[in-house]
Amino acid sequence: MIYLDNSATTKPFKEVVDAYAAVASNFFGNPSSLHSLGMQAEGLMTESRNRIADLLHVKNTEIVFTSGGTEGNNIAIKGAARAKQKRGKHLITTQVEHASVEEAFGQLEQEGYEITYLPVDQNGRVSVEQVEAEIRSDTTLISIIHVNNETGTIQPIEDIGKMLIRYPQIYFHVDHVQGISKVPLNFRQARIDLCTCSAHKFHGMKGNGFLFVREGIQVESLFQGGDQENGLRAGTENVAGIVGMAKALRMTKAKESKINDLVALKEQFIEQLKTIEGVWINSPTHASAPHIVNFSIPGTKPEVIVQSLTTKKIYVSTKSACSSKLSAPSRVLSVMGLEHDRANSGVRVSFSFDTTADELNVLFNELKKIIPELLEVVNS
Amino acid sequence: MIYLDNSATTKPFKEVVDAYAAVASNFFGNPSSLHSLGMQAEGLMTESRNRIADLLHVKNTEIVFTSGGTEGNNIAIKGAARAKQKRGKHLITTQVEHASVEEAFGQLEQEGYEITYLPVDQNGRVSVEQVEAEIRSDTTLISIIHVNNETGTIQPIEDIGKMLIRYPQIYFHVDHVQGISKVPLNFRQARIDLCTCSAHKFHGMKGNGFLFVREGIQVESLFQGGDQENGLRAGTENVAGIVGMAKALRMTKAKESKINDLVALKEQFIEQLKTIEGVWINSPTHASAPHIVNFSIPGTKPEVIVQSLTTKKIYVSTKSACSSKLSAPSRVLSVMGLEHDRANSGVRVSFSFDTTADELNVLFNELKKIIPELLEVVNS
Repeated sequence: MIYLDNSATTKPFKEVVDAYAAVASNFFGNPSSLHSLGMQAEGLMTESRNRIADLLHVKNTEIVFTSGGTEGNNIAIKGAARAKQKRGKHLITTQVEHASVEEAFGQLEQEGYEITYLPVDQNGRVSVEQVEAEIRSDTTLISIIHVNNETGTIQPIEDIGKMLIRYPQIYFHVDHVQGISKVPLNFRQARIDLCTCSAHKFHGMKGNGFLFVREGIQVESLFQGGDQENGLRAGTENVAGIVGMAKALRMTKAKESKINDLVALKEQFIEQLKTIEGVWINSPTHASAPHIVNFSIPGTKPEVIVQSLTTKKIYVSTKSACSSKLSAPSRVLSVMGLEHDRANSGVRVSFSFDTTADELNVLFNELKKIIPELLEVVNS
Repeated sequence: MIYLDNSATTKPFKEVVDAYAAVASNFFGNPSSLHSLGMQAEGLMTESRNRIADLLHVKNTEIVFTSGGTEGNNIAIKGAARAKQKRGKHLITTQVEHASVEEAFGQLEQEGYEITYLPVDQNGRVSVEQVEAEIRSDTTLISIIHVNNETGTIQPIEDIGKMLIRYPQIYFHVDHVQGISKVPLNFRQARIDLCTCSAHKFHGMKGNGFLFVREGIQVESLFQGGDQENGLRAGTENVAGIVGMAKALRMTKAKESKINDLVALKEQFIEQLKTIEGVWINSPTHASAPHIVNFSIPGTKPEVIVQSLTTKKIYVSTKSACSSKLSAPSRVLSVMGLEHDRANSGVRVSFSFDTTADELNVLFNELKKIIPELLEVVNS
């Protein structure tokens, strides 16, 4: 199997699965229980929280466990906007966000908030000046994706954050789901107030994530109930998943020294793709994540390429997994200004730190066979 | 270890942990992905949905996967109330709900809804007549817990549902988290529209649950994003946890023939408790779940009893785990009309189908030693 759909989800590390199973079996107490089984579970959760906070150079009280990236983005955006609504109801985001961000803003729009959706350039990027130009006295929240999940475009988060130092009343949320461990981001230096992460994108378990909530930031909860997670996220915590997530983050962070290897693999793969007639590269050349390559073959249906590769046990994707069952052209590629046929035929290849040159060669050789055949059908 | 805190959480079945680990390792695709790994994951999820629906005699399209009971209760209550707000803003519930129901209503109250919190009798129960007397033309939702999580009191859900057949415009939500598999409930016969269940209360994994949403019922989502779960619950599904949950439900349902054994154990244990001076039984004699015994020792601190038993590796609890770190008297026992000292000293013992008479004898013998010692301190 050649798995190249790591932006959709990653295979959990074996050590993470083992830790999950051990905790679920042996430390199954409810962390809210007063007896020693509860305290053991709570202790494991605290250790995990400390470990995650240390790895990200933040305080353990700033880590809130969630059920994943979609929930994290929804809590951050709706929770912050609602908490600040007395000060203003203007919010800023971009046109290239993940569905969970875009639709959270859509919900707020229905509630009477005014949203500015920043357009992007041909690389899918917004500029610091663009963001600043839209700031108004009633702006309360700016939310920008770090690494685009379809193209790998990196937004200038640190520069935007530095500009936002002059606007201390505005909350800054970053969707870091695709960036974590692949594109380093220092939350403090980037003046980030809220940052969403999801465990299954870094070899942890599905159903787990965390939200960084900077000390002093006010956010309303989406669920109410028990006092878990300081009342911001009620419900019995998924202790085994949390322990697994902390382990996955430590293991994946230990591989950051291999980022340059990914960059080299990516550059080589793009050079190979360019030799195939009819292929257009959509991922930008600069400020682009090391693990995502997006390309189009105008005129073809990307689903056909995905299915054809599937028969060879090679797994790639069309657009975002969360939107992949919609047959419309990619929203992200469209707003980058790509013509309909190109926006409609995007294929995404996404690496893990274990992806090899050999695997990419196998993929390249398959594409070299498939693409001319497909184009022949289109042109005949 | 003698684990008697099964209302807080249960130990997952070994088969469930094994299934979870196998799915997480071998079928790790994102169920929204178009390739065969995604389709395999989606297939497992569909099989699990079918199995759960079959076990509960409902349609597979009526099962919505959630992250657990708190999320389920919040989606059902807030989602239904908001979906029906144009028709009316009056809602009915009871004074003995779980925190996640109580606080979801609290949130709605802040949003301008009017809530009737029904008082209960000395057994913690509401009557059909009481519910019907509060129905108004603008009532849109009635939410009632099936089995109380502290006392085991069973509410007359089926009778209330039958009365509600005359009020088809009102949604009926039931928090079935404590009842499932221990106290049979036929969703159709009880005319239930929405029903919340949580996997870790029936030997599944924490971080998983499901909401029954009857066909045709309108509910607004709390999260937005992908189209998962018909748009009602966006976010990549916890496939391994869902497979585990279906297995746990099948296994626990297979033990329903042992309900009478639990009833016998419970009755015997209550008779034993009655022989200890200073003990008051709070669980009702009739219409009471077979797996929960709540008793008080007025004058004592229940935390001391929990901790003292912990040293003997016997695990029981004070009140609901989600509220156990609050030192206030039990809200449930208080509204049943119990005096302060009794409401403040509740201990909950909760069985699984594997609880034995021997285990309860060990507990009884410990209590026979501890309680007189504690009362001596109080009275000296």
